[in-house]
Amino acid sequence: MEFVLEEAAIILARTPGTLSALLRDLPDGWVLAHEGGDTWSPFDVIGHLIHADRTNWMPRARTILEHGEAKSFGEFDRFAHFRNSEGRTLASLLDEFAAVRQHSIEELRGAVSMSDLNRLGQHPALGAVTLRQLLAAWVVHDLDHLMQISRVLARQYTNEVGPWRQYLRIVREP
Amino acid sequence: MEFVLEEAAIILARTPGTLSALLRDLPDGWVLAHEGGDTWSPFDVIGHLIHADRTNWMPRARTILEHGEAKSFGEFDRFAHFRNSEGRTLASLLDEFAAVRQHSIEELRGAVSMSDLNRLGQHPALGAVTLRQLLAAWVVHDLDHLMQISRVLARQYTNEVGPWRQYLRIVREP
Repeated sequence: MEFVLEEAAIILARTPGTLSALLRDLPDGWVLAHEGGDTWSPFDVIGHLIHADRTNWMPRARTILEHGEAKSFGEFDRFAHFRNSEGRTLASLLDEFAAVRQHSIEELRGAVSMSDLNRLGQHPALGAVTLRQLLAAWVVHDLDHLMQISRVLARQYTNEVGPWRQYLRIVREP
Repeated sequence: MEFVLEEAAIILARTPGTLSALLRDLPDGWVLAHEGGDTWSPFDVIGHLIHADRTNWMPRARTILEHGEAKSFGEFDRFAHFRNSEGRTLASLLDEFAAVRQHSIEELRGAVSMSDLNRLGQHPALGAVTLRQLLAAWVVHDLDHLMQISRVLARQYTNEVGPWRQYLRIVREP
C-alpha cells in the first residue's frame, strides 16, 4: 500500500485509545508481565511510546523540514523510559501517551504536507532517509508494539492452554 | 501465570473495545487489507471472532459441564464467517461482536466456577482437554488475532518504511 499522510495520521491517532481499551485496569500481574530476561512488559512499552513521541518522531520530522540532510538526527535513547516511568501507574502513563500523541498529530497535520514527503534527512545509523519513510516507520512502530503487547499477554498462558498450543501461533512460535 | 477465571473474563471483555478502537472508521483499504493469497483481513478476523463466540467457546464449555468426556465437541467451521460477513460493514460486525461477547461473558460468569476448571471434555482432534485449557485457549485466541490484525496492518507499509525495516520486527519477519 502506498503511504498516504492523512491515513497515517488516522492510524497514529488511534493507538492511545487502542492501548487504553486493551490494558487499563488489567490486574497488575498482566500489566507487568514480560517474556523473561530483559524483555518489556506492557507498562514498559507505554513508557517507550511516550518517550519516542517526545524525542524521536516529530522532532526528527522537524529536523528534516528545517535542515534536510545537513543535520543528523540525534540518537534515540531506547531505555530512557525506564527512568521516566519509575513509580508511575499504568493509568497515568496511558493518559500521558494520549496527550502526547494528540500533540504529535496536531504537529504532524500542521507541519507536514504531501509535497514534503520526499525530502531527505540523515539517520545516524541508516544514512539517508525520506520523511515518508520516517512517518511510515512511526505507524509500523506503533503496530509492532501493539503486536508485542498482545504476544506478551498471550504467552502468560502458554502452559495453561495445554494441547491447544499447536493451534495458537502466538504461543507456538519462539 | 496461573489461569484465574475472573482475570480471563476481564481480558475477554476488553477485546471488542480494543478492536473497535483500532479499526472503526479506518479507510476501507486498511480494513480489507491482507497478507496475500488466502490470508485474512481485519474484516475477516472480526467475522471469525463472532462465529467462534457463537459456536465454539461457551458452547464447548457447556458441553463439558453437561456431558463431560461422554460427548465430543462439534467441529468448528473456520470458514463459516465468510458467508455470515458477506455484504456487512465493519461497523456492524464490530457492534455484533461487542453484543455477542457481552453475552458470552455473562454466560461464563453465570455457568462456570473455579471448582469446574479441571473437568474434562473431548476435543475431536486434541482428545481429552480440561475446561481450564479451553478457557485459557479462548483468551490466547483473542490475543493471537489481535496480533494478526496488528501485523496485517503494519505489513501494508513494508516497502514504505525503507531502511527502517531492519529495526521493525513486524515487517522484517516472514
